[in-house]
Amino acid sequence: MVVRVCVNGIGTIGKRVAHAVKLQDDMKLAAISTTSASYTLRTLLEPEGPLYGTDLWCSVPEKLKAMRDAGMYVNGTLEELLASGKIDIVVDCTPEGIGAQNKIMYQKYGVKAIFQGGEKANVGEMTFNSFVNYQEALGKNYVRVPSCNTTSLIRTLNVLDKLAGIESVFATIIRRASDPADTEKTIMNTIEPTTTVPSHHGPDVQTVLKHINIKTMAFKVPTTLAHVHAVNAKVKGQVKKDELEEAFVKNTRIILVSADQGYKNTATVIERFRDLCRPRNDMPEVAVWKETIAVDGSNVYWSHMVHQESIVIPENIDCIRAMCNLEKDGWSSIKKTNKSLGIS
Amino acid sequence: MVVRVCVNGIGTIGKRVAHAVKLQDDMKLAAISTTSASYTLRTLLEPEGPLYGTDLWCSVPEKLKAMRDAGMYVNGTLEELLASGKIDIVVDCTPEGIGAQNKIMYQKYGVKAIFQGGEKANVGEMTFNSFVNYQEALGKNYVRVPSCNTTSLIRTLNVLDKLAGIESVFATIIRRASDPADTEKTIMNTIEPTTTVPSHHGPDVQTVLKHINIKTMAFKVPTTLAHVHAVNAKVKGQVKKDELEEAFVKNTRIILVSADQGYKNTATVIERFRDLCRPRNDMPEVAVWKETIAVDGSNVYWSHMVHQESIVIPENIDCIRAMCNLEKDGWSSIKKTNKSLGIS
Repeated sequence: MVVRVCVNGIGTIGKRVAHAVKLQDDMKLAAISTTSASYTLRTLLEPEGPLYGTDLWCSVPEKLKAMRDAGMYVNGTLEELLASGKIDIVVDCTPEGIGAQNKIMYQKYGVKAIFQGGEKANVGEMTFNSFVNYQEALGKNYVRVPSCNTTSLIRTLNVLDKLAGIESVFATIIRRASDPADTEKTIMNTIEPTTTVPSHHGPDVQTVLKHINIKTMAFKVPTTLAHVHAVNAKVKGQVKKDELEEAFVKNTRIILVSADQGYKNTATVIERFRDLCRPRNDMPEVAVWKETIAVDGSNVYWSHMVHQESIVIPENIDCIRAMCNLEKDGWSSIKKTNKSLGIS
Repeated sequence: MVVRVCVNGIGTIGKRVAHAVKLQDDMKLAAISTTSASYTLRTLLEPEGPLYGTDLWCSVPEKLKAMRDAGMYVNGTLEELLASGKIDIVVDCTPEGIGAQNKIMYQKYGVKAIFQGGEKANVGEMTFNSFVNYQEALGKNYVRVPSCNTTSLIRTLNVLDKLAGIESVFATIIRRASDPADTEKTIMNTIEPTTTVPSHHGPDVQTVLKHINIKTMAFKVPTTLAHVHAVNAKVKGQVKKDELEEAFVKNTRIILVSADQGYKNTATVIERFRDLCRPRNDMPEVAVWKETIAVDGSNVYWSHMVHQESIVIPENIDCIRAMCNLEKDGWSSIKKTNKSLGIS
């Protein structure tokens, strides 16, 4: 059975999920749906674009005419598509809050759906991470994949938790101001604290790693490439610096980068993925700075970098596989997804 | 005959020239040479890197030991390589001024060489542009390819000159502070004039378009993605806005981008090339903003964007072909290079 996927919302995450679905052999990108004839949409659907030939639908009936007037070939509305019975699962990558509104429509037509981290946790039956709760997601109808920063904390903390048992965590998140081309929403020459303490990331981690006591604070800085975290975890057991380093290396979707070897900041790490000719310099792996791993008694420290545009893409693909029962074993899905996307 | 190419200097330009040479069928990347085991070099030579398997040499004898101590497999010194007779042409992409020093060595071993725009014009027998003087470069031994900004001016002014004959030009160049990963040389929160007036770009254009009276001024701003030019050309004849627009569209290696369609700044244009999955988001084309083309009597205006990292790459490939007599006709080489690099 080849699962028929529709991606709704073609922004930073949606365009990447759609491309990633195309690279799988057990699912088919049956359709994409969006609300305007953006320059991004036009590029993706060009003969040289990665989504060329994909059926296009309009997510909002009132915008259908405008999209057609702008010269796009739009098959019809998303609701018509869902009613046709030709879609098994929607990956909803619409802006914050819209996913929850769309859920009513997905339910009406009995179509499964994945929501992104911008939605509240209760939008789905569970919040998903490939390494923590793949089994639990098997056959589920509505599941949420948490945001980029949350995903990076889950991946790394899960490794430490298995090694030494985590008592509590405090993490500071230094956030990029906007994605590279989102020049209207950015900030310049300023540092902006998130005044909600803890920031949403801590509680969000707890939707997946329920037993971990974690608090986070977040700050926005005027860059576009990546987020950076400063993590302090207290462990119940014992762990040596080398053991944690080795565990990070062994775990897929986490890589170590060394400042001594030249990777001294987010720009040089992104340059590595440009040099490797990864599409859009995507780095779905969390990059931990090797030199920052430190242990002082029960206190463990490190800093990692998060490519906000791509880190959640492999988790979305695994989540489709779990919800559609394409693969019973989480590690088999992880390996398959990694291979298709060239992830270490 | 397959021409054996060595690229000396593996920085922003060198790594791209080396990769581009590998994509041609009438030349072979026989070797690369550099001076240190940089993170970039390591990445390029990894099994997943674009230069995997390429023979590595050291450009400076005194640095050979350090490169080997850093774990690189280095065959020997560049001079040994040149003495072996296994190289037909070197593309010298070393930092400003080093190329002129290297020329003595290239001459000693009778190896042809291409120099980059950082060198003075007299380093070569001529300064090259694919569209202006390909024929003149046939069989030459030492040729210079001008810098990114100069190349963009030559390409665009050449189109206008053929249409209406240029009387004089004044162009303002708003320069990116540094390449994306060159975080040590950048500037922040400031605008810096080049105090030499005219800036070197004007005289540099005249090394190729010798009859054009052009003056330029340049300013550095704190961005990394691209340079932007404001051009004012006075023409002898007449030209309509539509004619110039059409001529830009017709000419390869120049594209029109429309702010109305969303390409309102350098970030959104670069995002297009990320979306197209172009390696490293490279854009060797000059991008002219459609809306900025204006004509007022004999005054013609437009603004274009220059991807400083990649614009000179196709010209380097064409230049190899001309100097090694691989292709007598410039347009045939241009087409071949464009096809191999996916250039519009």
